[in-house]
Amino acid sequence: MTNTQVTLVQLDNYGPWTVTPSPRREVDLQTMQSRLYADLSQAFGMRDGYVFFTRFDNMIAVSNGLDLEDHARVQESIRNRYPVTVSLSIGTGASPADALVEATAALQAQGSAQDADRREALLGQPIDEETRTDDDVQIAHFDVVDATGTYTDELDAYSSFVHIEQGYAALMQHMHDAHDSLSFFVGGDNIIAVCPDLTPADYEEAIEHVRDTAGVDIRVGVGHGVSPHDAGMGAKHALEDAREHETEVEVVPEP
Amino acid sequence: MTNTQVTLVQLDNYGPWTVTPSPRREVDLQTMQSRLYADLSQAFGMRDGYVFFTRFDNMIAVSNGLDLEDHARVQESIRNRYPVTVSLSIGTGASPADALVEATAALQAQGSAQDADRREALLGQPIDEETRTDDDVQIAHFDVVDATGTYTDELDAYSSFVHIEQGYAALMQHMHDAHDSLSFFVGGDNIIAVCPDLTPADYEEAIEHVRDTAGVDIRVGVGHGVSPHDAGMGAKHALEDAREHETEVEVVPEP
Amino acid sequence: MTNTQVTLVQLDNYGPWTVTPSPRREVDLQTMQSRLYADLSQAFGMRDGYVFFTRFDNMIAVSNGLDLEDHARVQESIRNRYPVTVSLSIGTGASPADALVEATAALQAQGSAQDADRREALLGQPIDEETRTDDDVQIAHFDVVDATGTYTDELDAYSSFVHIEQGYAALMQHMHDAHDSLSFFVGGDNIIAVCPDLTPADYEEAIEHVRDTAGVDIRVGVGHGVSPHDAGMGAKHALEDAREHETEVEVVPEP
Amino acid sequence: MTNTQVTLVQLDNYGPWTVTPSPRREVDLQTMQSRLYADLSQAFGMRDGYVFFTRFDNMIAVSNGLDLEDHARVQESIRNRYPVTVSLSIGTGASPADALVEATAALQAQGSAQDADRREALLGQPIDEETRTDDDVQIAHFDVVDATGTYTDELDAYSSFVHIEQGYAALMQHMHDAHDSLSFFVGGDNIIAVCPDLTPADYEEAIEHVRDTAGVDIRVGVGHGVSPHDAGMGAKHALEDAREHETEVEVVPEP
Ligand SMILES: Nc1nc2c(ncn2[C@@H]2O[C@H](COP(=O)(O)OP(=O)(O)OP(=O)(O)O)[C@@H](O)[C@H]2O)c(=O)[nH]1
Ligand SMILES: Nc1nc2c(ncn2[C@@H]2O[C@H](COP(=O)(O)OP(=O)(O)OP(=O)(O)O)[C@@H](O)[C@H]2O)c(=O)[nH]1
Ligand SMILES: Nc1nc2c(ncn2[C@@H]2O[C@H](COP(=O)(O)OP(=O)(O)OP(=O)(O)O)[C@@H](O)[C@H]2O)c(=O)[nH]1
Ligand SMILES: Nc1nc2c(ncn2[C@@H]2O[C@H](COP(=O)(O)OP(=O)(O)OP(=O)(O)O)[C@@H](O)[C@H]2O)c(=O)[nH]1
Ligand SMILES: [Ca+2]
Ligand SMILES: [Ca+2]
Ligand SMILES: [Ca+2]
Ligand SMILES: [Ca+2]
Repeated sequence: MTNTQVTLVQLDNYGPWTVTPSPRREVDLQTMQSRLYADLSQAFGMRDGYVFFTRFDNMIAVSNGLDLEDHARVQESIRNRYPVTVSLSIGTGASPADALVEATAALQAQGSAQDADRREALLGQPIDEETRTDDDVQIAHFDVVDATGTYTDELDAYSSFVHIEQGYAALMQHMHDAHDSLSFFVGGDNIIAVCPDLTPADYEEAIEHVRDTAGVDIRVGVGHGVSPHDAGMGAKHALEDAREHETEVEVVPEP
Repeated sequence: MTNTQVTLVQLDNYGPWTVTPSPRREVDLQTMQSRLYADLSQAFGMRDGYVFFTRFDNMIAVSNGLDLEDHARVQESIRNRYPVTVSLSIGTGASPADALVEATAALQAQGSAQDADRREALLGQPIDEETRTDDDVQIAHFDVVDATGTYTDELDAYSSFVHIEQGYAALMQHMHDAHDSLSFFVGGDNIIAVCPDLTPADYEEAIEHVRDTAGVDIRVGVGHGVSPHDAGMGAKHALEDAREHETEVEVVPEP
Repeated sequence: MTNTQVTLVQLDNYGPWTVTPSPRREVDLQTMQSRLYADLSQAFGMRDGYVFFTRFDNMIAVSNGLDLEDHARVQESIRNRYPVTVSLSIGTGASPADALVEATAALQAQGSAQDADRREALLGQPIDEETRTDDDVQIAHFDVVDATGTYTDELDAYSSFVHIEQGYAALMQHMHDAHDSLSFFVGGDNIIAVCPDLTPADYEEAIEHVRDTAGVDIRVGVGHGVSPHDAGMGAKHALEDAREHETEVEVVPEP
Repeated sequence: MTNTQVTLVQLDNYGPWTVTPSPRREVDLQTMQSRLYADLSQAFGMRDGYVFFTRFDNMIAVSNGLDLEDHARVQESIRNRYPVTVSLSIGTGASPADALVEATAALQAQGSAQDADRREALLGQPIDEETRTDDDVQIAHFDVVDATGTYTDELDAYSSFVHIEQGYAALMQHMHDAHDSLSFFVGGDNIIAVCPDLTPADYEEAIEHVRDTAGVDIRVGVGHGVSPHDAGMGAKHALEDAREHETEVEVVPEP
């Protein structure tokens, strides 16, 4: 059974900061946000975790393998190098969606995202090192079939983007509502989903849903592992298999 | 009348690179992509331009104020510091959507996004310095009303994200189809749209559309200027006015 | 005659910040400092300027081509993205050393580097756009002859470093005392000097001085230009000539 | 007894790359080098290691706590995000200087720093996890007494730099020749030295040497630990004690 550890990363009181004393240059906000995300991605990644940029002011990490000390170090490093600070809240469970509900609730209980007095909260309890298993994380790497030939080389860049975005919107909502999964756009035509124990049939149905709702053809590779990196790398290799075999769903190791 | 200059930034042959010789670590791709975006944001921003991350492998810039030499320098700087290269294609026109159609078509004519022989294309013609005016760029900065109280502090982080994302999806498609505008999520609950000459009534209608379709309440500040920065900073101040007056649309200077 | 514009970049009240409330992690300080430097290098570089890291808390830029507005934008961008702020002070003159004396004195007159009330000073007057000429900047790019064969591949890494460092120390002091020049280590075995109108004989004598004092063989390429980039790129090409012709000094355009 | 693990980080075939096909913009090289360094500092730092920029094309890390897999990951991450690759060579021993001799020799045995066929070497053997002790690393954090009042606020910025640089040159050579230590400038007026088991008397003598040779007054805090971070943070606290007590040498824990 999966046991996903998620971490909610929330910038402290960020909205007010962006307009104090007057609105800040958008290009600087964009640079600051994307670099902060890049740093989190490396910091969690050095410990085999994944971070998704989500809204940039609220980012979601899959953090199996990072203990409280690791989290505290990331928090300190941001404080030392950025004009903003972050709160971190950890949740765990068989369902990624539920784990995030738990993490969010704990943080909300400490105060609002725009509470000037709530800074650098560090909440929740990571999974014990001894209880970690190879089944803890399941990751699905979705990819649009021939995005280059169908969209990028055919439509104007914004229309391509709208199509992929619609496929993404359909997928993320379906995977959340039907499958307790958290799906994230990771650039290009790729979506990575953190899932509970799903079956190949679940994935086939999701792919069909996206085709029916948004008219976008996708395929998926699925991997398992003790960490997001292990599961995610498995998923990438499975996706390569799916490309080669022209199949819709590939799971490694085979279930 | 507006005269928007857009630049399509396309990573050259990026898809194959991500899986050669075998799939690359996702955290490294995420870091590389977001830093490349951050650098473009600063580089264009130093000349008062805006860049949006869009798909990360295809980014869209509003580049009024950057000439061909500026573009060439950005291209060279990326080549000197990243393992990937970028092609740049410029389009111009009263309609931002049409300008991007032009820019995309020119690049597609040079070869596929995944053509190994098409590298560092630099296409299109910037607006002549002498013909630039204060009306060239119109930018609308949309923002969800009380996102913190309605979503962030109330729902779990993913559900908040889904709501904002749905508002965004509805807005971006409507603004594109009805108003030839290019709208981009810029983090948090903010969307920035590059528009032709739209009226306050157009914006009111768009806001109503989002409320009806996605159930999300938004407001907007609109600015004009010779550059994206000037227009965008006007829009931010107008948005502050809208917050203060609790109005839905504010335009500066008043039309 | 040269007319060098230098900008002193000083972190405001940085010493106290590094130990408040308690000493900060060294790796974070190192990261923050080197990224701040990298950003300044890009920001000045987009306008054809050069920045040298020097002490990191006091950096020296050659800023011909950047006006006050450009400086203000750099200052604002740092403020928006870093936990520290910078003061900027501009000096100009035929002698780079004197220009820096002027810039430093102006900043010192505003208060100490560790005065908590002196923040984001912006001082001095750039060279008028109309008076700029192709002779304004002279840059000399010094390079150790066969550093790889003599040091890197032969000695242990620290001893190699000590030798190059000693050559550098001898050169920087000599060029300052005898030739009013500002010389900076730029990595590897390279030193870039910003000079007044020096003759090939001056450079030969400097090279001899370094050979006699530190036992290190160097050669130099010298360029002129309206901007640091133009002069510096000339110097690099001249250095390539020197490598090819196995000469000690090459100047472009030939004097 | 100390047991220092050092890692030599060497950019592969970097010299030729900087001038192929023609000399690259200096500001881009500066940015690339300093960001590469910043990333290494974070990557090693997440595991409690230290990296010093040294020559930028040859960097020296104190890497107690990082095993071969950690090194391989750093190497891979650089390859995925930069246009250059790095070789890594590990050496260990009671003497930091000797450990680096070992690391350098191993790398040189694989080929020249400018050998196009030698890429991404990963050499040497880290210290076994079980044999690590609290005495493994000794770090001395040297600092100029009242650099602000004596130099920064008094002299022009270049003369201040020359004075600090001379103190540094005297210290680094003395600590290497007399004490088998590796000393590095870390910005401002600070030097960090990685040392074998030295006594307070050794440090007093070094400080005297710098005062006599270069006329620069310095003090030092010394720390021990299982990792560079632990030892270095001890040294920082000891330095704060030295500042408070106006002593020249403070060691924690007291010997
Ligand atoms: N984040 C991420 N993005 C990727 C990865 N692989 C590809 N991409 C993105 O996906 C885009 C499209 O590449 P591909 O999926 O290879 O191209 P395609 O035309 O859809 O071809 P097929 O997927 O093989 O049918 C690229 O430009 C990248 O932005 C990956 O592993 N991670
Ligand atoms: N890119 C960008 N994001 C912003 C800006 N201002 C705010 N945000 C984002 O918007 C989020 C929400 O902040 P606000 O919009 O101030 O908060 P709110 O609760 O919706 O309050 P009101 O908008 O005042 O009703 C922040 O966390 C930021 O991520 C901006 O100027 N640019
Ligand atoms: N900042 C900077 N560093 C450079 C440049 N060119 C080379 N280097 C550095 O110099 C180091 C040594 O390279 P080279 O100077 O080409 O090698 P060499 O063995 O001394 O050979 P020759 O100089 O040709 O005699 C490289 O590792 C780089 O760190 C440059 O243009 N700028
Ligand atoms: N790398 C690094 N640099 C530091 C640290 N602390 C201070 N500095 C640098 O040292 C410079 C001078 O600061 P201080 O040493 O506090 O100032 P000072 O005037 O010498 O005062 P005292 O040292 O207290 O006599 C700062 O601008 C920083 O660049 C540190 O912990 N690490
Ligand atoms: Ca695809
Ligand atoms: Ca809002
Ligand atoms: Ca050389
Ligand atoms: Ca000091």
